[in-house]
Amino acid sequence: MTPEPPARRRAAFAAWLGTTNDITRRFLAAGAIPDLVNLAGGLPPPESFPAAELAALAREAVAGDPGAALGYTAIEGLAPLRDAIAARFSTPALRLGRANVLVTAGAMQGLDLVGKVLIDPGATVAVQAPTYLGALDAWRPRAPVFRPVDLEAASLDAAAAFAGAAFAYAVPNFSNPTGRLVGIERRRALVEAARRTGTWLVEDDPYGLLLYEGTPLPGLLELSAEGSAAPYDGPVIRLGTLSKSVAPGLRLGWAIAAPAVIEAMTIAKQGSDMFTGGLVQRIALGALVGGLIERQAPVIRALYRERRDALLAAMDAALAAWFDWEAPVGGMFVWAVARDPGFDSDRLLGHALRRGVTVTPSSVFDPEGRNRRAIRLNFTLNPPARLSEGVRRLAAALGDMARGAD
Amino acid sequence: MTPEPPARRRAAFAAWLGTTNDITRRFLAAGAIPDLVNLAGGLPPPESFPAAELAALAREAVAGDPGAALGYTAIEGLAPLRDAIAARFSTPALRLGRANVLVTAGAMQGLDLVGKVLIDPGATVAVQAPTYLGALDAWRPRAPVFRPVDLEAASLDAAAAFAGAAFAYAVPNFSNPTGRLVGIERRRALVEAARRTGTWLVEDDPYGLLLYEGTPLPGLLELSAEGSAAPYDGPVIRLGTLSKSVAPGLRLGWAIAAPAVIEAMTIAKQGSDMFTGGLVQRIALGALVGGLIERQAPVIRALYRERRDALLAAMDAALAAWFDWEAPVGGMFVWAVARDPGFDSDRLLGHALRRGVTVTPSSVFDPEGRNRRAIRLNFTLNPPARLSEGVRRLAAALGDMARGAD
Repeated sequence: MTPEPPARRRAAFAAWLGTTNDITRRFLAAGAIPDLVNLAGGLPPPESFPAAELAALAREAVAGDPGAALGYTAIEGLAPLRDAIAARFSTPALRLGRANVLVTAGAMQGLDLVGKVLIDPGATVAVQAPTYLGALDAWRPRAPVFRPVDLEAASLDAAAAFAGAAFAYAVPNFSNPTGRLVGIERRRALVEAARRTGTWLVEDDPYGLLLYEGTPLPGLLELSAEGSAAPYDGPVIRLGTLSKSVAPGLRLGWAIAAPAVIEAMTIAKQGSDMFTGGLVQRIALGALVGGLIERQAPVIRALYRERRDALLAAMDAALAAWFDWEAPVGGMFVWAVARDPGFDSDRLLGHALRRGVTVTPSSVFDPEGRNRRAIRLNFTLNPPARLSEGVRRLAAALGDMARGAD
Repeated sequence: MTPEPPARRRAAFAAWLGTTNDITRRFLAAGAIPDLVNLAGGLPPPESFPAAELAALAREAVAGDPGAALGYTAIEGLAPLRDAIAARFSTPALRLGRANVLVTAGAMQGLDLVGKVLIDPGATVAVQAPTYLGALDAWRPRAPVFRPVDLEAASLDAAAAFAGAAFAYAVPNFSNPTGRLVGIERRRALVEAARRTGTWLVEDDPYGLLLYEGTPLPGLLELSAEGSAAPYDGPVIRLGTLSKSVAPGLRLGWAIAAPAVIEAMTIAKQGSDMFTGGLVQRIALGALVGGLIERQAPVIRALYRERRDALLAAMDAALAAWFDWEAPVGGMFVWAVARDPGFDSDRLLGHALRRGVTVTPSSVFDPEGRNRRAIRLNFTLNPPARLSEGVRRLAAALGDMARGAD
């Protein structure tokens, strides 16, 4: 008798691993295709990174205070960085102190820690639909029930949508994946619903700086703070990041919330990665106090606005028969909804990869995986000519699919 | 009628937060005590960090490849770093490839990811008792049942101890908190038990380089690989870190395991922090290939050996009436067990703080919090004179406690 291979007999993996989709793996595999046009991710172009300035900041971060940069430091983050983040987002009505701020490994870790402190198995999470894939990834291991909420529905009753939920989740600025801006009246309604229902309201804001026209709207955090005492003690948990304004490879984000939430997230962070490294925190501090964000923002905005316009022009020329879309006023994405309600964007993905282009199918932004009618196109990574080429390839893939090609 | 404060009415935090201890918070509060002698943590002394070399590596990490250092990179880690880690730990019998390696945010994140992929609520985890506090912190949010296993018990039946567990956990080299070395026969028994029961075996090895006398023993990973094919596909999940050999503020660790485990942990990491920043990965790569660890190890070993001897001499002089202990051959800690079985080291902690010294009480290393007979003393952070002063203060605190002082 031959014994079974040992790996087969080992203890099983946790149940949630069976619920994940394979989209990330397919994208990684696609990386091996030569000359692929990547319209799928939400990636900043590497040429936009302020590399020389960050190289100098990195050296100085270590040399200037080796103990803080290299040693064990507080779970919550370095005090000067927490103070700088609190000061940056304070207004006369929104009074933030150090106790309102936790430094995280990108906004992604903020999502993970929110899930750790607020989700017991089976808890309900009310999510803006469609929903950022990374938020679903972060929370699935804690086995919640997702309740999708269409924030654009004219009939939305936000209090009913939030009732009984552990928390509600929204990306009000240029939502991922749709690129839409949640309007001011709807924002006020979300905050009021959070107040009435006692639901925490997670405001994920990676894209706020990426506004290409018009005036910024106040965030849920600001709207929930009108007339608040110090420190802020309201229902909103704001997640932010340097990934879109400086560089994602720093893995530097933050949560701003009531002190009790920050304390709970701190305990959760202790068991996740102990603390965020002082080296990248000191680089971030240098970037914040040295004005790097203010210098970067207009450069990035001009670059991305041009690329958005190039993508939209290419789509107008090649995709209008297939899809409807709106021009986003900010962010990184165009959300295109097929005119045919029976369209299957999961199926399109295979054709697109064979034609040398990737987009993100809508199914991954649906907790149930059922929405297959739309695609998300990124316009920040590629220069205009590559965007046009990508759209041409996508049109060819659509033709292949319509002809029933394999 | 006055409405209740809004925070009171908000949704509750997850249940596991009620099960954590407050030891870390007490230590943080103790940081405000002037002139405190900290014998509690497992901290390297800041003066041991190779700051000048790391400052240069940090600058070069960005300047040499801004895209890799600053951009979005693979969840699993940078390919050259994964290859370097695989090469470092490969032997003729242990054949490791890139598919065996995941880069993590310190070994702490390795523990978190192991929990995410192996623990469903109510699953059993067989833990070496007493158990590293950080492992308990990492796994409590997933609500396992901890099964303590005394690896030093002459009567240990490892297969019975592992049976039905999702995984077993051990720190064979200078266990945290006891500083003990698990002997070679016991190591072989653990590997054999993992094979027979199908239980994954997590080998946490932060301290392996910190050996002060004798010859290093083969790890569980090496022992489980005798005669294996490439890539390694055995039952051991080895966690490692640069925190003790280079600097904890890099937050750079790794997991080495069967490819299926690495794939599952990669999915878990995607939802935890997306990826480890390329900047610190490139610094780590520079440290690994540039020989920094080989230059640091003898310096740190000599420093720590001297400090261990100083602590033991001070304990001999002042604590022998109260405690028994063994001289550890490596690591960072001495574990002192009270002669009085009714001793309460939780109570000692309050007295110690008033006398200006901290140690770690044994309760935090017991999943049930019941073991109050021992204390853990760190010898790496403080120079010999401070170690002696700390022990004198501890003896005074013991006297206070014996006299029934408040």
